[in-house]
Amino acid sequence: MSMVPHGGDLAAAEARWGVPARGWLDLSTGINPVPYPIPAIDPAAWHRLPQHDRLRQLLATARDAYGAPDTAPAVAAPGTQILIQLLPRLRPGARVAILGPTYGEHAACWTAEGADVTAVDSLDAAAAADVVVLVNPNNPDGRIVPSDRLLALADGLAARGGLLVVDEAFAEVAPQASVAAEAGRPGLLILRSFGKFFGLAGVRLGFALGAAAEIDRLARLLGPWAVPGPAIEIGIAALSDRAWQGAARARLSADAAKLTATLEARGLRDRGGTDLFRLAGHPDAAGVWNRLGRAGILVRPFPDRPTLLRFGLPADAAGFERLAAALG
Amino acid sequence: MSMVPHGGDLAAAEARWGVPARGWLDLSTGINPVPYPIPAIDPAAWHRLPQHDRLRQLLATARDAYGAPDTAPAVAAPGTQILIQLLPRLRPGARVAILGPTYGEHAACWTAEGADVTAVDSLDAAAAADVVVLVNPNNPDGRIVPSDRLLALADGLAARGGLLVVDEAFAEVAPQASVAAEAGRPGLLILRSFGKFFGLAGVRLGFALGAAAEIDRLARLLGPWAVPGPAIEIGIAALSDRAWQGAARARLSADAAKLTATLEARGLRDRGGTDLFRLAGHPDAAGVWNRLGRAGILVRPFPDRPTLLRFGLPADAAGFERLAAALG
Repeated sequence: MSMVPHGGDLAAAEARWGVPARGWLDLSTGINPVPYPIPAIDPAAWHRLPQHDRLRQLLATARDAYGAPDTAPAVAAPGTQILIQLLPRLRPGARVAILGPTYGEHAACWTAEGADVTAVDSLDAAAAADVVVLVNPNNPDGRIVPSDRLLALADGLAARGGLLVVDEAFAEVAPQASVAAEAGRPGLLILRSFGKFFGLAGVRLGFALGAAAEIDRLARLLGPWAVPGPAIEIGIAALSDRAWQGAARARLSADAAKLTATLEARGLRDRGGTDLFRLAGHPDAAGVWNRLGRAGILVRPFPDRPTLLRFGLPADAAGFERLAAALG
Repeated sequence: MSMVPHGGDLAAAEARWGVPARGWLDLSTGINPVPYPIPAIDPAAWHRLPQHDRLRQLLATARDAYGAPDTAPAVAAPGTQILIQLLPRLRPGARVAILGPTYGEHAACWTAEGADVTAVDSLDAAAAADVVVLVNPNNPDGRIVPSDRLLALADGLAARGGLLVVDEAFAEVAPQASVAAEAGRPGLLILRSFGKFFGLAGVRLGFALGAAAEIDRLARLLGPWAVPGPAIEIGIAALSDRAWQGAARARLSADAAKLTATLEARGLRDRGGTDLFRLAGHPDAAGVWNRLGRAGILVRPFPDRPTLLRFGLPADAAGFERLAAALG
């Protein structure tokens, strides 16, 4: 299994702190705590092999929701993670620069496939790379690289056979940061995650949008029927539901502000983030993490950055109150 | 997308024959037409990331259902197909012998990854190969290679770093043919499919059982959270439901015999198969295929073997009657 630390593993938390009397308040991920309601699923979607025409409909709906051109090549996968696993196959042995600190699986997957991976702290330091990877907005600090900078970088990489990978896992809550409108441009590969904004991480659904060469290759590596029939139907329903999306954005924005205020009032300084999670600084972050864990509240530590914690959003007022009480 | 012809694509059938007035009778796959009933799914399974402890429970349940040792290394994937896509990574550049004719994706995936692939019509012809692949019982003809022959072959391959891949996609209806009891033995890699016997191909769930080196590598290539939360829960429920499994085996056996009799009575000679599908011979198979298609009945042709058709099982008496009427 992966050696990259992740949030969301309640069994591991229970092994450490026991089962909390009030149940877990899991704030260890950046997943919307108020999920899109699962629609009724036609039993045929479970029974049959996934149907190609429904998959095409899903891809068209995703392009529309993300603001990508109708003609942009796109592929769906059972979660963005499996696309991250496959990206190194697009440029074997590449020199890869990853704008960090960021989501750890990018570096882990390129390294596992034999790429020459460098963590860089600015795009200027990535000039020698064949492949540049960034998460935009970034996880965990929310840093946004402007679109014009990204497109210029993609053009430069394309001119020498390189690739810019923009992981837009959290771009639903920062749509102005997305370069999806440029999907199909040579040198640009965009990842989009379904589960975080829609609060349906268990569905496992993600997309890559890019130039035909890269998208066709990813589709061949995934093979036919990579996305389960029910995931296709849930994706079509959720991605086409603009009313729900608008209401969710407004609620997430208000709750992220409330979370920041809750943390700041208890000595945890806001260090950035998105409307799906906040990064907070504290001189004894490990102590805070352990205190919260004992209170049944799971947040995300960073073993190599001991003054930081990442907080997902509580689902409701009771969750905010429980967090505030545990922080004391 | 894949260039291998497959059954189950109703949109393609509608493009050819139009939408049938009575709806499709899809007999083009080997999927049980009477699916395991989808249990109630905890909303948390859709919302959360898939939980490692539930995945471990799924693997334990699968080992038990398949008769594999409790200690056999195993990995779950979103469908067996994606495991077939990844198998070539276990032995890059290998000389691969595939016992054919069989399911086309094995040869396609090894070839796409640069392996030297040979189709052989007997295991004796596979002596020079590093990797031997067979489907057991075979699709479409149901041929079964005895277990002792397979284990001797696996041992011989293991002694020189090779691998025997046994795709047991249809072994639920021929449990005596399975080598799952030997899972973990060096040189032996077993694939099991969830969707066919349980009639839930849309779930996308498959397993590999084998030695630790191969299973660990497949798990790393799949990455964390490859199997959706609901698929884990459905898998645990179905794989532990021995009463349903026993009743399904009995019904499939009876219906397979009824299908054979139906086809033989109309001049289609039985050419083998399993209790999930029958292979039938007819001098003008393409003509029969087209006649059935016009009647809204989809069966599986073999472009390079124009006297054969594969028939899945009708779900009920009405389906059998409709098939018999269309065959005239």
